[in-house]
Amino acid sequence: MNQSHIKLFIPGPVEVSPETFCAMSQPMIGHRGSGFQDLYASIQPQLRKLLFTQNPIFLSTSSAWGVMEAAVRNLTSKKVLNCCCGAFSDKWFDVSKRCGKEADQIKVEWGQPILPEMIDAKLKTGQFDALTLIHNETSTGVMNPLADIAAVMKKYPDVMFIVDCVSSMTGVKIETDALGIDVLLAGTQKAWALPPGLAIFAVSDRALQRAATVPGRGYYFDFLEFKSNHDKNMTPSTPSIPHIYGLKFKLDQIEKEGFENRLARHLKMATITRDWAKSRGFEMFPKAGYEAITLSCVKNNKNIDVAKLQKALKDKYKVLIDGGYGQIKGKSFRIGHMGDETPATVTELLGQIDDCLKTL
Amino acid sequence: MNQSHIKLFIPGPVEVSPETFCAMSQPMIGHRGSGFQDLYASIQPQLRKLLFTQNPIFLSTSSAWGVMEAAVRNLTSKKVLNCCCGAFSDKWFDVSKRCGKEADQIKVEWGQPILPEMIDAKLKTGQFDALTLIHNETSTGVMNPLADIAAVMKKYPDVMFIVDCVSSMTGVKIETDALGIDVLLAGTQKAWALPPGLAIFAVSDRALQRAATVPGRGYYFDFLEFKSNHDKNMTPSTPSIPHIYGLKFKLDQIEKEGFENRLARHLKMATITRDWAKSRGFEMFPKAGYEAITLSCVKNNKNIDVAKLQKALKDKYKVLIDGGYGQIKGKSFRIGHMGDETPATVTELLGQIDDCLKTL
Repeated sequence: MNQSHIKLFIPGPVEVSPETFCAMSQPMIGHRGSGFQDLYASIQPQLRKLLFTQNPIFLSTSSAWGVMEAAVRNLTSKKVLNCCCGAFSDKWFDVSKRCGKEADQIKVEWGQPILPEMIDAKLKTGQFDALTLIHNETSTGVMNPLADIAAVMKKYPDVMFIVDCVSSMTGVKIETDALGIDVLLAGTQKAWALPPGLAIFAVSDRALQRAATVPGRGYYFDFLEFKSNHDKNMTPSTPSIPHIYGLKFKLDQIEKEGFENRLARHLKMATITRDWAKSRGFEMFPKAGYEAITLSCVKNNKNIDVAKLQKALKDKYKVLIDGGYGQIKGKSFRIGHMGDETPATVTELLGQIDDCLKTL
Repeated sequence: MNQSHIKLFIPGPVEVSPETFCAMSQPMIGHRGSGFQDLYASIQPQLRKLLFTQNPIFLSTSSAWGVMEAAVRNLTSKKVLNCCCGAFSDKWFDVSKRCGKEADQIKVEWGQPILPEMIDAKLKTGQFDALTLIHNETSTGVMNPLADIAAVMKKYPDVMFIVDCVSSMTGVKIETDALGIDVLLAGTQKAWALPPGLAIFAVSDRALQRAATVPGRGYYFDFLEFKSNHDKNMTPSTPSIPHIYGLKFKLDQIEKEGFENRLARHLKMATITRDWAKSRGFEMFPKAGYEAITLSCVKNNKNIDVAKLQKALKDKYKVLIDGGYGQIKGKSFRIGHMGDETPATVTELLGQIDDCLKTL
């Protein structure tokens, strides 16, 4: 590690371990040869197990936004309902319209969750054939009640259930098939603790059937292209091979740790952070009961100088926390506690924050 | 390097050096912070110099296909003319239609180049407002006469000139602005000698003006999003930071070698390979005078068992050449000689091929 290394505790990209980089630095292989096909095939059972699904898992060389846009483009014939509760989910509504799709939104104040009854009220109009939900809205630290929402979605089998779990995948258990999720997607730079550059997504049979009826899907993000190449253990276009080597490494690592242990570790880190915030007189930004597990968005109710805190942490301890996103910049701060972090590293960080708070 | 390392002499992905992987393995940085902005800004002058353009250079976390599709989606209002002379350029016509665009094609036999008079004949109908050309058609080893085509394109200023130089960028001089190219694009896994996962593209002012008038551009590949983020030294979505570190490393390396030296090295490798083929009784697959410089597609006029040759090279020398693409599989074979390769490594490879040819 070089001297200027600032360790990231922002909610993504997160710190990537030297071992992960080492795994990513294996010699190139042709992406149309058996070496790549073997690699692709080897990770499928691991991914399906981790995501609790029998659906194929596709790998897109893009950020999660590529697949978020693709899901709307591939699956919306009538109208898409975007559930908006923060910067990223708000933007999904905008992106839907930019794809030329009819779109409507459910919009709650930042910090509030999306509730199942809001969805029910909209879907019962019969106008919609797709819905987008961000499980973990990274900008506000809200984790939406996925199981309750999934229960409502079962009443509307013709509405494609598109779930972004960018900052929750691998840190929170998501039972894709039991929840009836048609598209589950995430990028690799959050709880996977890989660099950004790859998106992972599981697509249901019924979503593939829907896609077949929707024109204008294009090529790069066409779900049917992903499927036909998947059947040969390949990706439609030349993929980022280093990221896929890295993904294999992380999957092996997750298996070794045990997924239940991994979930417990993430919950523990969240609890430590929330307890710390409370004991220091801070409130959490999300409505009580809807706090994310992989990151904490802390309300700046004490009116500290967040930018100054960030700078002090960076200068003195070479760590970076986030100073609040968009409209809540300075009014909140965010700490990522996911991926390779542990209760010990999070506790150390919180001690460093305590120390810097004294100097503000 | 591990024991199973097979060195790639296919025309992409190509071999990536340990030093490049090392550069890519630097600690993560936030993509909305000054560290990233400094990195992004630092490579712009280097890229502009290398590509002979004053246009902004955008970085897309995708394969080149993402930008190939994007160029059609962003710039076609009336109708796009796709110049088809091999697997990849043929496919571009298909992709154009899949984006819901009106499209027509110029189609020549594999091995033949696209000639300026063919383009003139089509464009003079006035039907078209965009044209796609693959400079170096990697499947056939044909390098199209870019300067002559560019001269014709100047007669049609309303037709966007979209040029894929996936396997020629950095190995052949391309004077983007002088040639009037509106979109110049490439992936990183060819002559850049980086892993796949990033696409680099330069977009002209007039292309940005056109894009502003074209609906349905979406978000992920919207040229105007790239531009507005570029103005802040950022990318629209979270980019593959390792690839950008790698790109910086390669740009510095190219500067150190000197671009003219680099061009001479690539030409030398091409000459060695063509001379070798001729002296062994092989013909080149492309029409004489249109052979690519960064790879050679050799016609299998001696009817050797190409698959057996590939296997012998892999088993005995741990090197991989390509056995011909699509409809010319087995009827040709391809050798990549680009990126970090040298006349010495290419000469060594050709000796190994000689040795294996004896055993067929």
